[in-house]
Amino acid sequence: MLGRLNHVGVATPSIAQSAERYRLLFGDAAVGEAFDLPAQGVRVCFVDVPNTQVELIEPLGADSPIHGFLAKNPAGGQHHLCYEVPDIHAAKAWFEARGMRVLGEPRIGAHGTPIFFVHPKDMGGVLTEIMESPRGEH
Amino acid sequence: MLGRLNHVGVATPSIAQSAERYRLLFGDAAVGEAFDLPAQGVRVCFVDVPNTQVELIEPLGADSPIHGFLAKNPAGGQHHLCYEVPDIHAAKAWFEARGMRVLGEPRIGAHGTPIFFVHPKDMGGVLTEIMESPRGEH
Repeated sequence: MLGRLNHVGVATPSIAQSAERYRLLFGDAAVGEAFDLPAQGVRVCFVDVPNTQVELIEPLGADSPIHGFLAKNPAGGQHHLCYEVPDIHAAKAWFEARGMRVLGEPRIGAHGTPIFFVHPKDMGGVLTEIMESPRGEH
Repeated sequence: MLGRLNHVGVATPSIAQSAERYRLLFGDAAVGEAFDLPAQGVRVCFVDVPNTQVELIEPLGADSPIHGFLAKNPAGGQHHLCYEVPDIHAAKAWFEARGMRVLGEPRIGAHGTPIFFVHPKDMGGVLTEIMESPRGEH
């Protein structure tokens, strides 16, 4: 079963512009440095909310999986929810045993631990990221 | 400025069906009883995630504001994010002073404290609920 909500993924056409809004909403110190994740075709920036994080996601490169989302939602919007689990491989087996489609093999995510996505059609329309909790936390 | 993420609002055509999935994901005890909010045209059900909640929202009545969302997203999906503030009227003035559109007057929300929504066009495409923290909490 799932643990805490690690973050809410929010797609944006411009992290620079969105970061300005989130600095206003949560304070300057809450907004981290943006960085590229070339393997996933995204640039990301984490915002600390008191009990979770918002992950701002901007397309990186022509093949970014975010282009399709922004074509439908030009201003950006809620893209995915990410929950933590203690063991990514056990979690993959758990979803698959219940007929829920895991999209690809576990790979290293934005927080440096393994992640996978579950198909939104098996999660009530919610694209869901499953992330192994960082070691030594929780 | 904003406080903790009180909940993620997830629209669904059927709370009964979604609740079944969330019991599997977070355990039977995590899923509360569903109840109607006729003034807002929705039926809701809260799911306890370790550090926040998911609010399942089903349309209630022919004029429910959720019908439009479900017409675009028949399987359901992420509908809004709700952040807490200590004082709802101070929060309304704060958003308005920055040119962000508050939708209507504060009214009592699903947790029994005053809430309002901020226009998604002023929040990077994210429909945002602002909720006064329950007294005696936080």
